[in-house]
Amino acid sequence: MIDRYEKGMEILKITNKNKIQEVFKELEDIAPDLGRFVVEFPYSEIYTREGLDLKTRELATVAALTALGNAEPQLKDHINAALNVENTPKEIVEVIMQMSAYAGFPAAINGIRAAKEIFKERGLLPVK
Amino acid sequence: MIDRYEKGMEILKITNKNKIQEVFKELEDIAPDLGRFVVEFPYSEIYTREGLDLKTRELATVAALTALGNAEPQLKDHINAALNVENTPKEIVEVIMQMSAYAGFPAAINGIRAAKEIFKERGLLPVK
Amino acid sequence: MIDRYEKGMEILKITNKNKIQEVFKELEDIAPDLGRFVVEFPYSEIYTREGLDLKTRELATVAALTALGNAEPQLKDHINAALNVENTPKEIVEVIMQMSAYAGFPAAINGIRAAKEIFKERGLLPVK
Amino acid sequence: MIDRYEKGMEILKITNKNKIQEVFKELEDIAPDLGRFVVEFPYSEIYTREGLDLKTRELATVAALTALGNAEPQLKDHINAALNVENTPKEIVEVIMQMSAYAGFPAAINGIRAAKEIFKERGLLPVK
Amino acid sequence: MIDRYEKGMEILKITNKNKIQEVFKELEDIAPDLGRFVVEFPYSEIYTREGLDLKTRELATVAALTALGNAEPQLKDHINAALNVENTPKEIVEVIMQMSAYAGFPAAINGIRAAKEIFKERGLLPVK
Amino acid sequence: MIDRYEKGMEILKITNKNKIQEVFKELEDIAPDLGRFVVEFPYSEIYTREGLDLKTRELATVAALTALGNAEPQLKDHINAALNVENTPKEIVEVIMQMSAYAGFPAAINGIRAAKEIFKERGLLPVK
Repeated sequence: MIDRYEKGMEILKITNKNKIQEVFKELEDIAPDLGRFVVEFPYSEIYTREGLDLKTRELATVAALTALGNAEPQLKDHINAALNVENTPKEIVEVIMQMSAYAGFPAAINGIRAAKEIFKERGLLPVK
Repeated sequence: MIDRYEKGMEILKITNKNKIQEVFKELEDIAPDLGRFVVEFPYSEIYTREGLDLKTRELATVAALTALGNAEPQLKDHINAALNVENTPKEIVEVIMQMSAYAGFPAAINGIRAAKEIFKERGLLPVK
Repeated sequence: MIDRYEKGMEILKITNKNKIQEVFKELEDIAPDLGRFVVEFPYSEIYTREGLDLKTRELATVAALTALGNAEPQLKDHINAALNVENTPKEIVEVIMQMSAYAGFPAAINGIRAAKEIFKERGLLPVK
Repeated sequence: MIDRYEKGMEILKITNKNKIQEVFKELEDIAPDLGRFVVEFPYSEIYTREGLDLKTRELATVAALTALGNAEPQLKDHINAALNVENTPKEIVEVIMQMSAYAGFPAAINGIRAAKEIFKERGLLPVK
Repeated sequence: MIDRYEKGMEILKITNKNKIQEVFKELEDIAPDLGRFVVEFPYSEIYTREGLDLKTRELATVAALTALGNAEPQLKDHINAALNVENTPKEIVEVIMQMSAYAGFPAAINGIRAAKEIFKERGLLPVK
Repeated sequence: MIDRYEKGMEILKITNKNKIQEVFKELEDIAPDLGRFVVEFPYSEIYTREGLDLKTRELATVAALTALGNAEPQLKDHINAALNVENTPKEIVEVIMQMSAYAGFPAAINGIRAAKEIFKERGLLPVK
């Protein structure tokens, strides 16, 4: 079990830097196992898999969360993660804009707003 | 206007080969302009943009349609398109499996079922 | 109570002609009260209200069910109902096409496919 | 009619204590009948039915609203209601965590955040 | 191209008055083409079409965004737009309330809350 | 690792009897690990947890899948599972009907249709 957890934490250190600690802290007194599941299932079992690089995986997650349109905090986390694994702001913007065709303009515009907040925090505006 | 349409059709010939003709034919006697919009907006304006290659764009669309889970015919079209722009069956499977973490296992399993039908038609099973 | 039910059934006779009987029959041995709720709540309490005519109400429902994209049988029922309260095939097509901007092209195309089946049954193709 | 309304209000007094008054007040000058519908349809017709106890009904609603992920105020109301009909904080946490498998981790994490706010207000943290 | 853009902007001046400028400004340093797409696709290609008047089109969009329940800023924009093309507050309330039957009460109540904010800003309360 | 898998399989034998073998077989040549994830994550980590019994867990899943409305095969699997862990047909019908208030009538009616197919196969009609 420990291996599984550590394997996931290694990915999380790359994708989320230290931000995941905040989520763990938040879950601590109510549902600590949910934090463990996130480490042990998607990060340990999925993001470590061969066949698709981390850069593309994070972009796919940004696409999905933009399209679903109902999980803004996690969309922001994954925009941050996408940047952390060498996606350019431009690539992230492109994938969010593309969602206008599959989930409509409101979803795409709200996705861009989420990206704008993250890019602003990280001094990445304007996007060229 | 003609340029716009032709620009989109050039992409569609790459991504959808001749399959798009069926959709156009189906829309002909009820909503022909909807077919034109698909050519002129997503294909002419989005898929032609710099900043993200066609291969990644189709993978992002597969991610989004798997997560939304309510557009099976279009998911299959884009699995086909993803293959047509040099994604491997493995890459497509990986992105669909990843959606289990963002949209749940039912969405991921139904996405894999859609991929399986396409891969079978194209003689791409088993996926390794 | 009887009045409430009868009030809803009067609307249903206009919007659904005799089609609703099939749904009632289907629910009879498993959840008959669900059929009664449909009569007594949306049809008796909402579709009878002043302030919006039946023609526009049915068009709004077609818009919503196209956008949600996960209730094809009911979308078809309401396309039929929309025709029954004097919407033209053209008006229905327009409202479905418009959804491409709010819920994406797959939702709009699938909505048009549903409309095409109904229009075909009723000899309303081609739409002009 | 009065009976129907009173029957629903009796349930609401148990599940929502006096919180529903705020919703009624909010709807008063814009859509008072929507408040009445909530009393007369779900509370009078559904929550009063035999065959499933109120405790399980509220838990099922928490499951659904967590999975849908787009109605945070109502999710919080029903977490409160679930507590009011003798669900433990633990049971509520369990049902929300379970949604990670059916609607993804973002939906489950956002559901836990909603629960945490309610549990905090009611002095129910930490959950054991 | 210029014609297409100007054609869309003419509609936007009617539906959104000067509010759209804020969205354009917001997108300027991150995804300016997304703003252009909104003008050139839905406003230029859809809202200008014959077969359905602007008044009904805006009401259909309010229906869809209420039902989807995940795009509050755009729902408010379209409630404003619906008023700007001669829908009465009553008609808007009716269409939102109707969504309770197709997307549930939480979606309808959250839609009414969005409408209430807009109506309050414009001095349109109480609705009669 | 083996323990984790076996722990999940023990639950699956209770909830799904031998039906899960079909899903595993279907995934075998395309995404076998997705089948393993289902065993190791929801069944091993969630359904085995204390704090909520299997009977209520399956009912909560039926509620969520009915409300989401886009995963009919899995909804049917969980209706079967709900029966297998001592829910009565009546309890299942009640939880599905209740979803009409949170996800609309189309979702509830389609949920009842799914239940009807399962109940018919198992000779459980009419429901009393």
